[in-house]
Amino acid sequence: MIEFKVIKKSNKSRARIGILKTTFGEIETPSLVTVATQGVVKTLDSREVKETKTQVLISNTFHLHLRPGEDVVKKNGGLHKFMNWDGPLMTDSGGFQVFSLGFGKDFGIGKILKEKPQTEIKIQKQPKMVKIMEDGVSFRSPIDGKLLFLGPKESIKIQEKLGADIIFAFDECPPPNASYDYMRESVARTHRWAKASLDSKKTKQALYGIVQGGEFKDLRIESANFLSALPFDGFGIGGEFGYEKEKMSNMLGWVTDKLPENKPRHLLGVGYLEDIPTIVTGGMDTFDCTVPTHFARHGVAFTSEGRIDMGKSKFLNDLEPLDKNCKCMVCQYYKRSYIAHLFKAREITALKFLSFHNLFYFNTVVEQTREDIKRGKI
Amino acid sequence: MIEFKVIKKSNKSRARIGILKTTFGEIETPSLVTVATQGVVKTLDSREVKETKTQVLISNTFHLHLRPGEDVVKKNGGLHKFMNWDGPLMTDSGGFQVFSLGFGKDFGIGKILKEKPQTEIKIQKQPKMVKIMEDGVSFRSPIDGKLLFLGPKESIKIQEKLGADIIFAFDECPPPNASYDYMRESVARTHRWAKASLDSKKTKQALYGIVQGGEFKDLRIESANFLSALPFDGFGIGGEFGYEKEKMSNMLGWVTDKLPENKPRHLLGVGYLEDIPTIVTGGMDTFDCTVPTHFARHGVAFTSEGRIDMGKSKFLNDLEPLDKNCKCMVCQYYKRSYIAHLFKAREITALKFLSFHNLFYFNTVVEQTREDIKRGKI
Repeated sequence: MIEFKVIKKSNKSRARIGILKTTFGEIETPSLVTVATQGVVKTLDSREVKETKTQVLISNTFHLHLRPGEDVVKKNGGLHKFMNWDGPLMTDSGGFQVFSLGFGKDFGIGKILKEKPQTEIKIQKQPKMVKIMEDGVSFRSPIDGKLLFLGPKESIKIQEKLGADIIFAFDECPPPNASYDYMRESVARTHRWAKASLDSKKTKQALYGIVQGGEFKDLRIESANFLSALPFDGFGIGGEFGYEKEKMSNMLGWVTDKLPENKPRHLLGVGYLEDIPTIVTGGMDTFDCTVPTHFARHGVAFTSEGRIDMGKSKFLNDLEPLDKNCKCMVCQYYKRSYIAHLFKAREITALKFLSFHNLFYFNTVVEQTREDIKRGKI
Repeated sequence: MIEFKVIKKSNKSRARIGILKTTFGEIETPSLVTVATQGVVKTLDSREVKETKTQVLISNTFHLHLRPGEDVVKKNGGLHKFMNWDGPLMTDSGGFQVFSLGFGKDFGIGKILKEKPQTEIKIQKQPKMVKIMEDGVSFRSPIDGKLLFLGPKESIKIQEKLGADIIFAFDECPPPNASYDYMRESVARTHRWAKASLDSKKTKQALYGIVQGGEFKDLRIESANFLSALPFDGFGIGGEFGYEKEKMSNMLGWVTDKLPENKPRHLLGVGYLEDIPTIVTGGMDTFDCTVPTHFARHGVAFTSEGRIDMGKSKFLNDLEPLDKNCKCMVCQYYKRSYIAHLFKAREITALKFLSFHNLFYFNTVVEQTREDIKRGKI
């Protein structure tokens, strides 16, 4: 059960601020959704996550299904209790992860692309590692090679056991180099799976449908229209579109204009710092991204001076905090010199400090963005 | 500058409780000294370390000299500020680490031995990786192979720059299979270095001399007597003696009976949970050991039921905390099931949880030991 209320709409863009109420508390939107893939925000505990101004987490159905299994989580009283997170919580459908085993592995395609792949995927082509069928997808577990099957029914059942506040319909996440014909079939399948997801759900969890259609305007609009007509509680926007900012901006516009205004919109898996204005002015209410924590584990801090790499020796002699203007625990108590030392000495605490700071920093940027919408600046 | 006051002496053993005052606060003794080798308690930050009931830390002169270098630490205002630790702090002399590069590498000897090595080291034998000279030891950096030199003068100078409350004289840590003749020469050298350490020191930091002598009663007693006559602020007891509990008990007795009662005694690098009674009844006031954090990183939790290995699948279905009676943050909020999941999923947070719990658990055991001495039980 969620309630969503738009507080203010920008008159300069599609940006808006709102309140998304869940059983486990409210989210001020727009909001970053912090990624807790395996039921934990990497390197942190739940108290620390709270202190990074994180309002809501998203965990991964695919990963939690493989390990430890949804039954273990259910036995613990659900994912909130399992991970000691008493705030709002989402789980994705697992679609993206299954398909990144497929086309992702075949073409070396990750979520974030620098440029459009050269090879176009035709309708006949199926990914090697996964087999798409009418009811779902069969694939081999990357942990133990076991043959597994995930479809709308299975995904919803798993997500019900995990017990997040907001869950997602099972979708096909097509590769960015899909041909128009491939994409049309894929979107139609995603729509059938959306309906099946709705039909499967027995709980009061909020269910979001996922808009697909890649870079094709008519398919995106068709997808947004189709899903809008179904009784979803909100909408995810999926697919890969990171390789050209302008394309993302256009695409968000097409979709936002068709989706119902009174329901929340979530952008799946996108959120570089520089993307945030595009995401917000594109009308998104929430978005999740691993960038803050992923880069942290590679020694990168996001600051008002840009990204800095704590692996560089010059920082050993730098007595400033990671960011002079940042109010986070790390910037309050620790210097770049110390963090650079810990990172070079391969101390785990360095990764925790950088994860903590980066999340706080991103959340502060989004908080500022909310202020800007409130004041009519965006 | 330290002040040490014995509060109560046991009439059943050499155990005693006391207060060790430093510029950065008081330590209730006996106390575990938590190891912060490279200027950090592995996986934790300084707030968490405080929350594990840790009263005092010990950092490693050898490691901090190699990386980031004492000048970087000094530039940060000393080790307390560098690592954001405002409690009592020790640094060791670096002797143990230099020598574990030597005999340790040659014979595969670590600090903790299961049994006495078969090969006896004769006086003629020198370790391969290090060269012992009258003024100190030359060795190659394990980080970059650079030729380095560490002796009493160098060690004290580094420790002065690091700025801990309690520092240690530079000593030779001889291997447990040293012959009597080797040991006699080694102890004599350690004594010359002890004097040189005293002569070198220019700060008001408290300086501890280190008693050596291995398993040889006369050498241990001679060493304790020799050092007692010098103006040290306290005493470390060094060397390897972990392979037979009874031997350690005897050895501590010989030494304790010769050391001045009004000065604190620190046992270097020993502290399995089961060793704590021997250490305390042997008259030690402080002792440092990596066991709680080292085992944590290998998935082991210390509990009132004994050691448990969180890598075992059965714990995935165990809804108990690590220890039912433990009041630590981890046992309050997280179940074995979750921690086992995180450990199996290779999540760093698991290592942090186990480190946190183990330190808290050890500190609680030592706290209980203080209570037992207070009540005349030990």
